[in-house]
Amino acid sequence: MRATLIYGRGDVRVEDVPDPAIVEPTDAVVRVTRACVCGSDLHRYRGMDPVEEGLRIGHEFMGVVEDTGADVRGVKRGDVVLVPFLWADNTCEFCRDGLHGSCRNGGRWAVNGLDGGQGEAARVPQADGTLIRLPVGPDDALVPSIMALSDVLPTGHHAAFTAGVGKGSTVAVIGDGAVGLCAVLSAARLGAERIVLLGRHDARTDLGRRFGATDVVPARGAEAVAALRELTGGDGAPHVLECVGNGEAFETALGGVRDGGTISRVGVPQYAQARLDFDVFMRNITITGGVAPARQYIPELLSEVLDGTITPGDVFDLTVPLDDISEGFRAMNERTALKALVRP
Amino acid sequence: MRATLIYGRGDVRVEDVPDPAIVEPTDAVVRVTRACVCGSDLHRYRGMDPVEEGLRIGHEFMGVVEDTGADVRGVKRGDVVLVPFLWADNTCEFCRDGLHGSCRNGGRWAVNGLDGGQGEAARVPQADGTLIRLPVGPDDALVPSIMALSDVLPTGHHAAFTAGVGKGSTVAVIGDGAVGLCAVLSAARLGAERIVLLGRHDARTDLGRRFGATDVVPARGAEAVAALRELTGGDGAPHVLECVGNGEAFETALGGVRDGGTISRVGVPQYAQARLDFDVFMRNITITGGVAPARQYIPELLSEVLDGTITPGDVFDLTVPLDDISEGFRAMNERTALKALVRP
Repeated sequence: MRATLIYGRGDVRVEDVPDPAIVEPTDAVVRVTRACVCGSDLHRYRGMDPVEEGLRIGHEFMGVVEDTGADVRGVKRGDVVLVPFLWADNTCEFCRDGLHGSCRNGGRWAVNGLDGGQGEAARVPQADGTLIRLPVGPDDALVPSIMALSDVLPTGHHAAFTAGVGKGSTVAVIGDGAVGLCAVLSAARLGAERIVLLGRHDARTDLGRRFGATDVVPARGAEAVAALRELTGGDGAPHVLECVGNGEAFETALGGVRDGGTISRVGVPQYAQARLDFDVFMRNITITGGVAPARQYIPELLSEVLDGTITPGDVFDLTVPLDDISEGFRAMNERTALKALVRP
Repeated sequence: MRATLIYGRGDVRVEDVPDPAIVEPTDAVVRVTRACVCGSDLHRYRGMDPVEEGLRIGHEFMGVVEDTGADVRGVKRGDVVLVPFLWADNTCEFCRDGLHGSCRNGGRWAVNGLDGGQGEAARVPQADGTLIRLPVGPDDALVPSIMALSDVLPTGHHAAFTAGVGKGSTVAVIGDGAVGLCAVLSAARLGAERIVLLGRHDARTDLGRRFGATDVVPARGAEAVAALRELTGGDGAPHVLECVGNGEAFETALGGVRDGGTISRVGVPQYAQARLDFDVFMRNITITGGVAPARQYIPELLSEVLDGTITPGDVFDLTVPLDDISEGFRAMNERTALKALVRP
């Protein structure tokens, strides 16, 4: 089959790789009908040193079940399924706690010999725990919004949920990428009254307003902190959703959070250390968040996609065939596209 | 009056300073009947560069009201009062949120011209908000346990409370100083079932067991993490109370916390940056805690001291006269004393 490999900074290629096949009795093989390029894929696209053998990539996809192992009960050949960005058994005590990123029998895509999502097919471990059967066809009009459930919407929801956003909350969202916009949508969905979106790209922040942002701060760093504080009576926002993942965004979060407030980090951190000093201590700031248990949130979010309550698929503004996926990477990297859908 | 000043590493002196007097109509003047030396005082005792003019010090004390400003209503001359380690108006929106460390009209002792607690008397700003009237005399047998309410017990309680400790919780407490031991007591009081105390001083961990520790790990660093994980089925503790404040203790907390768990920091951080990397992110670890709103917790804890339910005063194992306070610093620094009470 054809699949995407990354060879270094700016170097994404589609090549022939071995076809996936059942290895464990809990596996399924899924023919991929849609995949996405993720903002976190761009970290490597921007910074990876060249490698001789390309690395598989991609973790957001949906498709049709082609084969199942002997122990698989929940899905069968021909089922249309959504695949979360982590695979998990959905039964261990961590999964039962809603912590699928720590599943005893789970893991990530495109590592340790596993397929990535950006290819024609994938072997799916723990198929019963991982896959969500969809009640629509693979080309349904709802597919873009369903694809947003693979990663970006559950990740945005994780930010809002773990930050304790609820009815009447005042929330700041740092970052106008797909995750930031989905965090806006999630905060609105959870009842936030005031949602300040920090982002500098009009097309994106316009979508943020449609998703529920009440204010937009088109600035970054100290200027953004000052504007956010001015919008919140000088004190900052009790809930800050950090949807970028770099050190500057974390520092903006510290500057913009109210004393006693919570910063939830859902941008994959591109730093090892961060400020947790006397000031953070005296202000009783809580740092939470992390990798989202998408599998946990998908059923609830899917029902709202199916009934049209939410349209997170609006984040997709580019569709490319698999062979042109490098165009999707390029456009997202240059910010001419917000998020790319891929058709194998 | 006589008061304690610190001039540098290991250099604590008792000298004559101006008598306190009412400045603001919301002030009281309190004659100090007991003070304490705090573990956090030792940070300067161990590391402060020499200064020409000594700095006032001390933030845990009780006493008798000698004078009150024109606007003070809640206390009057002759009242025996407990003084929390921060002063606050107890009425602003931060105080109403239980966040007295961020009070709009509050602050710390022994800074900006204010008296410290380790002297014969102190001007108390925001007297109505700050002071707690006591129903016992200044030499009552309960005084040591009452003095523990000025800082160490509310700080231990803050660790347990903000970490979400409740009925049946499994908790790890890092540090066998007075705050760590009070964190053990607090976790037990909140219903924790398993309390693992990390500490290497038998006399202290023995008191920890009396306060409710079910297990003691007499190790630090990687060895402590391994032992803690072994005691918790390999996964670590869902609630970790970090009661030391140095980088090693924070790293031990990261190593010993269960995925999805919470670290509450109540040791004043002696570091500016800490690890908040991809590992912490993937494990969904929450970092919370900070400076304790002692004023918020004191009424509830005081009632249990008065009825004999808890005896946090057991942490005091040395009493020194004010003129010999340097002996209290020395003994605590050398760990021959756990915590020193001071009699002016």
